[in-house]
Amino acid sequence: MGRAGPDRRLVDVSVDLNADLGESFGVWKLGDDDAMLDVVTSANVACGFHAGDATLLLRTCRTAAERGVRIGAQVSYRDLAGFGRRFIDADPEELKADVIYQIGALQALARVAGSSVSYVKPHGALYNAIITHRDQARAVAEAVHAVDPSLPVLGLSGSVFLTQAAELGLRTVPEAFADRAYRSDGQLVSRRLPNAVLHDVDEIADRVSSMVTTGRVAAADGSMIPITVESVCVHGDSPAAVQIANSVRQRLKADGVELKAFT
Amino acid sequence: MGRAGPDRRLVDVSVDLNADLGESFGVWKLGDDDAMLDVVTSANVACGFHAGDATLLLRTCRTAAERGVRIGAQVSYRDLAGFGRRFIDADPEELKADVIYQIGALQALARVAGSSVSYVKPHGALYNAIITHRDQARAVAEAVHAVDPSLPVLGLSGSVFLTQAAELGLRTVPEAFADRAYRSDGQLVSRRLPNAVLHDVDEIADRVSSMVTTGRVAAADGSMIPITVESVCVHGDSPAAVQIANSVRQRLKADGVELKAFT
Amino acid sequence: MGRAGPDRRLVDVSVDLNADLGESFGVWKLGDDDAMLDVVTSANVACGFHAGDATLLLRTCRTAAERGVRIGAQVSYRDLAGFGRRFIDADPEELKADVIYQIGALQALARVAGSSVSYVKPHGALYNAIITHRDQARAVAEAVHAVDPSLPVLGLSGSVFLTQAAELGLRTVPEAFADRAYRSDGQLVSRRLPNAVLHDVDEIADRVSSMVTTGRVAAADGSMIPITVESVCVHGDSPAAVQIANSVRQRLKADGVELKAFT
Amino acid sequence: MGRAGPDRRLVDVSVDLNADLGESFGVWKLGDDDAMLDVVTSANVACGFHAGDATLLLRTCRTAAERGVRIGAQVSYRDLAGFGRRFIDADPEELKADVIYQIGALQALARVAGSSVSYVKPHGALYNAIITHRDQARAVAEAVHAVDPSLPVLGLSGSVFLTQAAELGLRTVPEAFADRAYRSDGQLVSRRLPNAVLHDVDEIADRVSSMVTTGRVAAADGSMIPITVESVCVHGDSPAAVQIANSVRQRLKADGVELKAFT
Repeated sequence: MGRAGPDRRLVDVSVDLNADLGESFGVWKLGDDDAMLDVVTSANVACGFHAGDATLLLRTCRTAAERGVRIGAQVSYRDLAGFGRRFIDADPEELKADVIYQIGALQALARVAGSSVSYVKPHGALYNAIITHRDQARAVAEAVHAVDPSLPVLGLSGSVFLTQAAELGLRTVPEAFADRAYRSDGQLVSRRLPNAVLHDVDEIADRVSSMVTTGRVAAADGSMIPITVESVCVHGDSPAAVQIANSVRQRLKADGVELKAFT
Repeated sequence: MGRAGPDRRLVDVSVDLNADLGESFGVWKLGDDDAMLDVVTSANVACGFHAGDATLLLRTCRTAAERGVRIGAQVSYRDLAGFGRRFIDADPEELKADVIYQIGALQALARVAGSSVSYVKPHGALYNAIITHRDQARAVAEAVHAVDPSLPVLGLSGSVFLTQAAELGLRTVPEAFADRAYRSDGQLVSRRLPNAVLHDVDEIADRVSSMVTTGRVAAADGSMIPITVESVCVHGDSPAAVQIANSVRQRLKADGVELKAFT
Repeated sequence: MGRAGPDRRLVDVSVDLNADLGESFGVWKLGDDDAMLDVVTSANVACGFHAGDATLLLRTCRTAAERGVRIGAQVSYRDLAGFGRRFIDADPEELKADVIYQIGALQALARVAGSSVSYVKPHGALYNAIITHRDQARAVAEAVHAVDPSLPVLGLSGSVFLTQAAELGLRTVPEAFADRAYRSDGQLVSRRLPNAVLHDVDEIADRVSSMVTTGRVAAADGSMIPITVESVCVHGDSPAAVQIANSVRQRLKADGVELKAFT
Repeated sequence: MGRAGPDRRLVDVSVDLNADLGESFGVWKLGDDDAMLDVVTSANVACGFHAGDATLLLRTCRTAAERGVRIGAQVSYRDLAGFGRRFIDADPEELKADVIYQIGALQALARVAGSSVSYVKPHGALYNAIITHRDQARAVAEAVHAVDPSLPVLGLSGSVFLTQAAELGLRTVPEAFADRAYRSDGQLVSRRLPNAVLHDVDEIADRVSSMVTTGRVAAADGSMIPITVESVCVHGDSPAAVQIANSVRQRLKADGVELKAFT
């Protein structure tokens, strides 16, 4: 949780670090789950609809459990070929049932691994769609609520999804992206625009530390904007991404921020 | 549980009736879940690997819950194109994880429907394979045990699967098939042989009532063999099948057998 | 092709009748391919992406070949669970490759059946999307052109898809829907509105005959609008649909219209 | 084609090098198609059933066409989750139709890429099964014959598959494996046994050159056995595999063997 103040190290500041894991499938590998489980405090584990065969998911849950990393269900449209990155105009009732199915599948795997599913985070195109798509946002929120009303949801601050989830009484956790540029209205710069994604390791670490400790971040136009961050999303799908994630972790610790799962 | 005696109506005899449900997928319909849920006491609900999209599964679970029909997880090889009817030489570790995944998915849907998964029954080629395939039998039994050691499993009496499950401490429920011919050693006559499947409604009802009330059944060679029946499997994938299932139910009630889920 | 005139039987009028076939999958049956292949002159055969396992597709192609019914490739988004009825925001390059793949698969099956793929018709949500979605329309047209520039495409008159296809030099075949209401601008009344779909057998047969012989149809507001029809789409996914299709066929023949595949 | 003789460089010796390509899927990458297309003379391109989305397959076909590498259809069981490495007890008629479908799909992609499918090679568990499984072997051979009786098939020397294919009049191309140990009866040492796979780059290159130029190879028990080799299979699924493949290529050229696609 960010806060502003003259000497940030005197107060208690903590933040959660989350990343997408369990995104291999069968013979195909993606990301370095093992390395990332040393970096993050929360693992968004795929549920088989965009990635993640059950064998891998069980292994990822086991490693997460061993290292004390919290497990979240990273639910998606049903689209292995598109890795859940393509909007699908799914009927809300179907989407709701699909999300329930996915959470349940991961719950069983997590339990067998000695842990449990502690939150839900939508993946890819679904994540993006429900920033604004009311019916699908509602469907996902209702699915989470139906499975367990005490499950928090991770999402973009200000999204329709978080609003809908809050209306149902779900705990909502706004997250920030370590390597994404922000507009002055607090939304993400579209990936189709130049400079939407940051690549400089130090710059990224600086930004994240600033977000968390001051509650503000520099937007793409240079203005400082307020940002609410309970969790920071880092990536692990390439060696460079793992390096960035590690760098963010180290900077936060150096700046006196405690890394721990949101409560 | 069958028993033999001069006047079977004086004693307390009960049996479970189970059928495969939730086996439609998307636009494609199979069977008449609604009709069958008036016939059976236990519903083997598909889990999405051989059939059953989440929307349908949720609906079937809801109807089962409304009518007091118990829900079981009908787990399968991952094979929509083959409807789970083709043996797949799956690695036991993979099979175990796949079974955990499927049970978990259905558990969430059943809970949302106001019920729960109360047992597990393998489907199709997996059912047949683990009559003898030790490694796969063990994998399925371990999966059930890992999810919940109090979950009973349904299977063929004398199968390696039930033996393995019992070794792990699982409650095992032997079932009989209403419309299948038996060999004198108690195994099913292969479907590849003539007369493996019975079609006469009255004959089927007679046999089932005889199995349940006397603990014996006429084998294909005419000999009377003992049979242990805690549940009878009926089919619902055609209007004729639904009619047979209804006939079995009525005959059992007429013969004083109580229809209730196994305990 | 319709025409207007005092005595339509004196001139040569013909039209093609098309229907969606090959839409079963594995154990699941949809529609009555056998019956419909006695009704239509062109069969839009699914290609496996929204429906149609290869065994079924081969069988449908064989029956079509035996009865002299022309085979078209009914290409779709990759979406078995949604039966191709959900818009997917697929990348145009991916969509193009997917369409090439599907046409090729059906070409081989049709050749083995002693026939060939003679045209392409998009299915479901793809059909609807490319009425207006320029990039996806272009992708589908380019795919057809890349496979064989002599392949005609079936689509909605006035759609972006037919325009794009024509720009590439493809032969375009505008079709009408036997059982759908039209707006006064020639577009279809949305299925979400009442009376979008006609159900009266005689009314449908009347409309189709009128469209074909006069080149005009009554719009939902009662006005008569011009319509260009080289093929009429009928459905076969229910007994009632088969009956309607048969009725349309009989009416057209009674009114002196020759039923034959478009050239 | 190997031959024995005192001075092998005086005679004309050539061989084909083949490798499995197009085995990525969606976001998941496997192997280095680009590098391998500089090594091999024949590319066994996946057809979508065990790997290979259409976009990738088209790209791989294009690169193959540009570099003059011949394209073969690498057909498989339908099993993305298992990468086609699990035996599936598929019905022969279904398998036949599935193989026709796959060949056709790749034919269209290859044609669009300016090339064509020049042969067929079964993948993974299917390859292994039809070394001995007569019905499935026959089904695959019939599928190839039905699509185009002039298409050669690649397989293991002495396999039932090649025998069945030859009976149908197909051209059969026996292949050897660069990195696999052989038994004294000419079959491969099972992967479950130690030393089934060779890893030493020089040893592998030596063996291949020996096979091709002398028609003999050292079996695991040290005996020299005859081997018929028209094509050598190399792997490209890891950097080490690409290095081995390159080494084999260079050794063959150094030993005066011409690398060219079989005729």
